[in-house]
Amino acid sequence: MPRWLHFDPVLHLIVMERLQPHIILRQGLIQGRTYPDAARAVADYVAAAGFFTSDLASPFERKCEDLALFSRNVALQRITVDLVFTDPYAVAPRNHWTLPWLNAWAAALRNDLALKTAVARHRLNYLTHTQALIHGDLHTGSVMVTETDTRVIDREFAWLGPIGFDLGAFIANLLMAWFAKPADTGAAPVQAAYRQWILDQAVVFWQCFDQQFRGHWSGHAAANDAYPAHHFAGTAGQAQLGQMQRDYVARIFDDTLAYAAIKIIRRIVGFAQVADFLAIEDPHRRARAEASALALARDLLLQPQRFPDIAALVEAVPRYEGAGLDPDVSRAH
Amino acid sequence: MPRWLHFDPVLHLIVMERLQPHIILRQGLIQGRTYPDAARAVADYVAAAGFFTSDLASPFERKCEDLALFSRNVALQRITVDLVFTDPYAVAPRNHWTLPWLNAWAAALRNDLALKTAVARHRLNYLTHTQALIHGDLHTGSVMVTETDTRVIDREFAWLGPIGFDLGAFIANLLMAWFAKPADTGAAPVQAAYRQWILDQAVVFWQCFDQQFRGHWSGHAAANDAYPAHHFAGTAGQAQLGQMQRDYVARIFDDTLAYAAIKIIRRIVGFAQVADFLAIEDPHRRARAEASALALARDLLLQPQRFPDIAALVEAVPRYEGAGLDPDVSRAH
Repeated sequence: MPRWLHFDPVLHLIVMERLQPHIILRQGLIQGRTYPDAARAVADYVAAAGFFTSDLASPFERKCEDLALFSRNVALQRITVDLVFTDPYAVAPRNHWTLPWLNAWAAALRNDLALKTAVARHRLNYLTHTQALIHGDLHTGSVMVTETDTRVIDREFAWLGPIGFDLGAFIANLLMAWFAKPADTGAAPVQAAYRQWILDQAVVFWQCFDQQFRGHWSGHAAANDAYPAHHFAGTAGQAQLGQMQRDYVARIFDDTLAYAAIKIIRRIVGFAQVADFLAIEDPHRRARAEASALALARDLLLQPQRFPDIAALVEAVPRYEGAGLDPDVSRAH
Repeated sequence: MPRWLHFDPVLHLIVMERLQPHIILRQGLIQGRTYPDAARAVADYVAAAGFFTSDLASPFERKCEDLALFSRNVALQRITVDLVFTDPYAVAPRNHWTLPWLNAWAAALRNDLALKTAVARHRLNYLTHTQALIHGDLHTGSVMVTETDTRVIDREFAWLGPIGFDLGAFIANLLMAWFAKPADTGAAPVQAAYRQWILDQAVVFWQCFDQQFRGHWSGHAAANDAYPAHHFAGTAGQAQLGQMQRDYVARIFDDTLAYAAIKIIRRIVGFAQVADFLAIEDPHRRARAEASALALARDLLLQPQRFPDIAALVEAVPRYEGAGLDPDVSRAH
């Protein structure tokens, strides 16, 4: 994060470090630059913030202090509930998309009861699962980078919610960056190598989160109410705790895929579009890239069993390229 | 609830209706009395309190007000976390049980890693699932009755948590009342009929909750963020919403069985015993009744698939009678 230099609660004034010569990661990805440490650094951030603000790290009373504070952050959460979780699946005045090419996709999302059922489950999870203090808006525009430094900014959506919401946001924006660079644009070998680098970052991001999160857990098992150390002492108890850690992270992975899908959908047929796609000037080409991402998002929500781990996800992504503007055809794709 | 007559926040003073000639339901059950409306009335209470304080009934901002308030109720929650969820599965100074007969059972519960894993899952759910404002201590000692009137008292453990925690508490205490009246005591036909009445109340309680909760939902579908009405309009949408309501209540049922089991265990090998069992003067007889309840509780946690609905639960209960003081033998029972 940027260093905090001063906070004045009366003036509502924050003074923080000016990040220079950092740029927004999303801009770097649009420009085709690589950032060797960015995915790992953001994963480290989510793992540390997620673990140490959860009930896994402290007696439950500590999280209750966060709950009392952040349950007052309702104005920003209203934006998330409406724009991320609700409007994209209905006729809503703020929705827009690449006209007229995505009309059929927008209608298909509005009319898919199974999809809206899956979204409802994850929306309710977002509203009721106080897993940890999350960033709440961790897309590639909330990350500033140089080649050697990575910072997370813009935490005004902070909220007690599912850790997978942050992980899904970051992965969704990597995947949208990938879809926004179709194979038939640019110098082909350079483009192919860069796209592979983007997918590799999704793998690095998840694997680093997984490793760091379980590492924090193993290193701080003492004072917490969720998994009391004395319940799982001894060799067998420690083995069981290790299994529970893997199961816990596996449930975060399931959340991550669903929230990644929900983030992709809201960025294509909802209010706030992403610059990655908007950089494609020809609307027909842009819509084709967006439709491919939507086809992946729909399958992530409706057929999550097809994506059992991060390797399966990145292996599947290229198969969605060219899914097409007809959502019924792309279903059979 | 008793009528509130006056509240003075400065003096921390509450004046409420004196309930007369009500007695505590637990005492009524020990005396072998029947209360035709009690189970239905308590179910109505849980259904209304659970639904109308959840995200199903209002925009999410309303629940956030409760979160800000009740996340300060940590002193009482510390009691629940320690005495209900933690101490019974470890050597803890406040634990006690019917000596020496239950020593083997107490050790078996402490040493069962699969059981402690199941408990950990439900403890974490209790700490992180802000489903609704729950009572937090809804045993048969928190209900006052006459033959025609039923009131819920003692809500000082109120907390945003899983609705099944309240339902499980009430069912656990009905089941303990049943186990505390072994078939070989009292006038046999009278005893058998009374025990059947107790099991019938568990069925009435669950079925009434299920009906009332889904009834509230169907009647108040408009202004909520969890299942927006315009996402599920039309005949197909309404049918889908009906299915989601049944699925939602089915998940509450799963929680209910687990929390019932956890409540039974904590009342037999933990700090606070129940008068139902203590009324059995002969410790050997008492321990046998308690061991039967523990055998049921263990299976509820480890083999929940054997109890798919309330009918399966009450049909199974009598098979645990006489499970025995040896937890390894009763496992094969």
